[in-house]
Amino acid sequence: MIKLSNFPFKTQKTVPNGSDNKSTWILLQAGFIRQTMAWVYTYTTLGLKVLRKIENIVREEMDNYGVAETLMPALSPKELWDKTGRWDSIDVFFHVPAANNKEYGLNSTHEEIVTPLVWEFIQSYKDLPTSVYQIQNKFRNEKRAKSWILRWREFLMKDAYSFHLSNEDFEKYYEWMKEVYLNIFKRIGLWEDTIIALADWWTFTEKFSHEFQVKIDIWEDVIYKDNKTWICYNQEITPVKVGKENVADSELLEKKDIKHSSDIIWVEALEKFLWVPKEKTTKTLFFETAEGKFIVASVRWDYEINTLKLQKILWTTSLVFASEEKVKEITGAEIGYAWIINLPENVDIYLDDSIEWLTNFETWTNKTGFHTININFWKDLELPQKFYDFKDAKIWDKNPETWEIYEVFKASEIWNIFPLETKFTKAFGVQYLGEDNKMQTPLMGCYGIWVSRAMWLVAEKYATEKGIKWPENIAPVKYYIAVIWEENIEKAYELIEKLKLDKSEIILDDRMWRKIGFGQKMWDAELLWIPNVIVISKKTLEQDSYELNWELIKF
Amino acid sequence: MIKLSNFPFKTQKTVPNGSDNKSTWILLQAGFIRQTMAWVYTYTTLGLKVLRKIENIVREEMDNYGVAETLMPALSPKELWDKTGRWDSIDVFFHVPAANNKEYGLNSTHEEIVTPLVWEFIQSYKDLPTSVYQIQNKFRNEKRAKSWILRWREFLMKDAYSFHLSNEDFEKYYEWMKEVYLNIFKRIGLWEDTIIALADWWTFTEKFSHEFQVKIDIWEDVIYKDNKTWICYNQEITPVKVGKENVADSELLEKKDIKHSSDIIWVEALEKFLWVPKEKTTKTLFFETAEGKFIVASVRWDYEINTLKLQKILWTTSLVFASEEKVKEITGAEIGYAWIINLPENVDIYLDDSIEWLTNFETWTNKTGFHTININFWKDLELPQKFYDFKDAKIWDKNPETWEIYEVFKASEIWNIFPLETKFTKAFGVQYLGEDNKMQTPLMGCYGIWVSRAMWLVAEKYATEKGIKWPENIAPVKYYIAVIWEENIEKAYELIEKLKLDKSEIILDDRMWRKIGFGQKMWDAELLWIPNVIVISKKTLEQDSYELNWELIKF
Repeated sequence: MIKLSNFPFKTQKTVPNGSDNKSTWILLQAGFIRQTMAWVYTYTTLGLKVLRKIENIVREEMDNYGVAETLMPALSPKELWDKTGRWDSIDVFFHVPAANNKEYGLNSTHEEIVTPLVWEFIQSYKDLPTSVYQIQNKFRNEKRAKSWILRWREFLMKDAYSFHLSNEDFEKYYEWMKEVYLNIFKRIGLWEDTIIALADWWTFTEKFSHEFQVKIDIWEDVIYKDNKTWICYNQEITPVKVGKENVADSELLEKKDIKHSSDIIWVEALEKFLWVPKEKTTKTLFFETAEGKFIVASVRWDYEINTLKLQKILWTTSLVFASEEKVKEITGAEIGYAWIINLPENVDIYLDDSIEWLTNFETWTNKTGFHTININFWKDLELPQKFYDFKDAKIWDKNPETWEIYEVFKASEIWNIFPLETKFTKAFGVQYLGEDNKMQTPLMGCYGIWVSRAMWLVAEKYATEKGIKWPENIAPVKYYIAVIWEENIEKAYELIEKLKLDKSEIILDDRMWRKIGFGQKMWDAELLWIPNVIVISKKTLEQDSYELNWELIKF
Repeated sequence: MIKLSNFPFKTQKTVPNGSDNKSTWILLQAGFIRQTMAWVYTYTTLGLKVLRKIENIVREEMDNYGVAETLMPALSPKELWDKTGRWDSIDVFFHVPAANNKEYGLNSTHEEIVTPLVWEFIQSYKDLPTSVYQIQNKFRNEKRAKSWILRWREFLMKDAYSFHLSNEDFEKYYEWMKEVYLNIFKRIGLWEDTIIALADWWTFTEKFSHEFQVKIDIWEDVIYKDNKTWICYNQEITPVKVGKENVADSELLEKKDIKHSSDIIWVEALEKFLWVPKEKTTKTLFFETAEGKFIVASVRWDYEINTLKLQKILWTTSLVFASEEKVKEITGAEIGYAWIINLPENVDIYLDDSIEWLTNFETWTNKTGFHTININFWKDLELPQKFYDFKDAKIWDKNPETWEIYEVFKASEIWNIFPLETKFTKAFGVQYLGEDNKMQTPLMGCYGIWVSRAMWLVAEKYATEKGIKWPENIAPVKYYIAVIWEENIEKAYELIEKLKLDKSEIILDDRMWRKIGFGQKMWDAELLWIPNVIVISKKTLEQDSYELNWELIKF
């Protein structure tokens, strides 16, 4: 029972620190949280109660499904990360210098800890499938935050890991887990706003991960939905094909070089200068792969090159921009003037399909200071064997299969599930004795939930001007008992006993001083949004009653 | 409900890794824990259940007492620690390098976070007293461990902090908190073995902290108990006075220098060489204080100098050994030959009372290569104004007040309470408006419980050869339901419904393969030490019954 008379974390008339969203503003004002440093928070009593209720819903659903809870540490030895090569490759991974010239990891994820842990218990195919989960803090060495809610440096996460004999077994589990996740949404009040989007998780797989995305104004991702198939895609992997319409001219013009004017910075100026519509201009970037190959990639002006898509096409472990010197060496032109014409034969050219149907289009042509206009395939340029899709999707784009225009919306990822295949089990040499008496490598799956982010997304969704209208089963407590004038406090205890109320679900407003009267008490009860408000006052007692949500009830 | 058929963390016939104590050995064998790295553990399902039960008992007792739960982060900004000067002075504090040239603390304690947090909510004397607590992981950059149980690098702790108007108010709260702690002990089964010992917490106070110490073989501290007053002391502060008995000779001999033989290393050899009993030899160390003062301190040979006691006598922020050069410069002798005779006047000499009644004793006398024997106060040496107590207590020592010989035993600290006075509130400039309209600094108290260590101490206390005999309210689950032969599994579900058993309190042994028969199931139930064992077999079903702890009960 929280007695407000000596409770430190009081509501405030004004917000102590600003925030960029309405939920954090109210969480601060209601005394649910405080910021300890940028993107690192303290949960005060009532905020912690909400967080724990969400956490317990997650726990119940995982337990019901037979996943074994565990609790792995926040610190881990470098040796485990060396096995997968992720010690240096996770860019937000904190390395902690320690005594005896050691370095520990402060875990941003736990695959490297869970894989050898479970391995110790797996000997034979009879031990599979099995799965474990934990609800544990993760740490990320973030450089920049997107908002108060997203990309924290320390946050609570549920992560589960499953181990399987076969792909079939894995896929069955994976589909079940999606159901478990949807159950959790229902219970915490995010059901209607959640969609499942396909996303990338690793270069070297054709499988997608699944992100559960909440449509919300405080967003991190852009989601593309095909309303014919109901499939949603994270922008990073949304497939796009540009059609033929509105781009082909009937007459193919003569190619022409035009000297560039240094006044031209924006494409709109270029449009006027060259008498070419901007849809007929192109954009080219030069890359180097992990294998040292030089790649030239080009998209239509109004698209951006999606390096993730391009990397998957190239099937390479890294893809970086080529240096200025390298571009000059190979194209013969300054970096700003290089394009795909007149390149040496050993350079690989990749054209996006947004270029495929262009006619009379403009580019730079590896001649410093010059544009070329009226370029056409067949005539001025060989048609490549294949056009690719390595562009970022944008509004009005269409799905290549259904030709449906995507519905586009902003969203925040709240959980994700990954088919890890054998990436980690292979790295750790995990094997089991199969039914056929041969050693086999188990498949793995990984299933995350951002528990603390879930609390913020609920807060943002249910925020009103007067408080956060928490769904009843995650409201901080069930009862707010306001006692007006001290002589009546015993009556409150009597009522608690009589109704057999769970004491951990009660705020007792026993503040009798500093003119904290009825109005202030009701203002607080509303700001905290406690579903059941009980009032015991002289007025109610005269009728031997108390008030529950404004209704008079006999003692 | 844990179903063993797909539960990963199985019991083992042999222990996968060695351990230096019986409890850890059984925790490993029963699959309660695994070591992730030295002194960093993973809790597997059943170990976590025990930990959470202890945690919840602590939480309930704190909540009942009206302490507000909070959850502060593990990371903290350096600026907070700079205010108290503890960024560098806590030797086990992890410093974490971060993006943007920052460094964060990985908290080993939370005074620097809680003080400004609560301060924000305190304006006037009407807001006090108040108190908060959290159950949160602490991190310590330990160099060496004492045992598998003590001195971890990552462990769960409950820490509470109280804020007060007056010393009287603080002391009342402090005494109450001791009661709360003893309640917690009772509930987790450590009541009989716990004693409260006085200990030090800060140089600049005469107040003691209180350590709750569990008498146990896996120990870290030595406790001295005065059986007259029932007061217990941590060895570090145990007061000792050496009496007159057995040390005074009737005849005072002539002082004599004897050349040292380089063969003599041990005091026993010295004894024979000089014809002086070892109780008449002395031990001297040279120190420098924070203020740059040179200190010479001497105790009788059979004691050790307790630098904590000496530092308190000197009331200085630091006390370090003087360098070899400094000793030579001041005493004129090599460091091994220096003593308290013939020193310059500006050197402060401190003699322990173990020297007070010595006659005809031996020392070095600042003459390289020489011992001096037959030294006597008055005759060869001025009697100092005062003898001090700065020795470590040892067995057979007596309390200076009661002259009672101490009872000495080994123990492990499980929690402690500290009177922080105004150490932290002053550092953060925390003030409130007093009833007299003047600004005042609140007093603070701090109250710790090593939650994860508590689990180990219970395990160690209740360890048997067959399993850890957990006290019933912290056993991993309440029911172990063993089903013999598959056709009977539905009967188990039926029984669970009928008895309305809490599903989170059940292990269902539904393993039907690999010859896991009745014997193995009972062996597991005992190793895990589940208080209620239910057996459903063909035999019991023939009588339309199940067995509960070997007693046949009708369905």
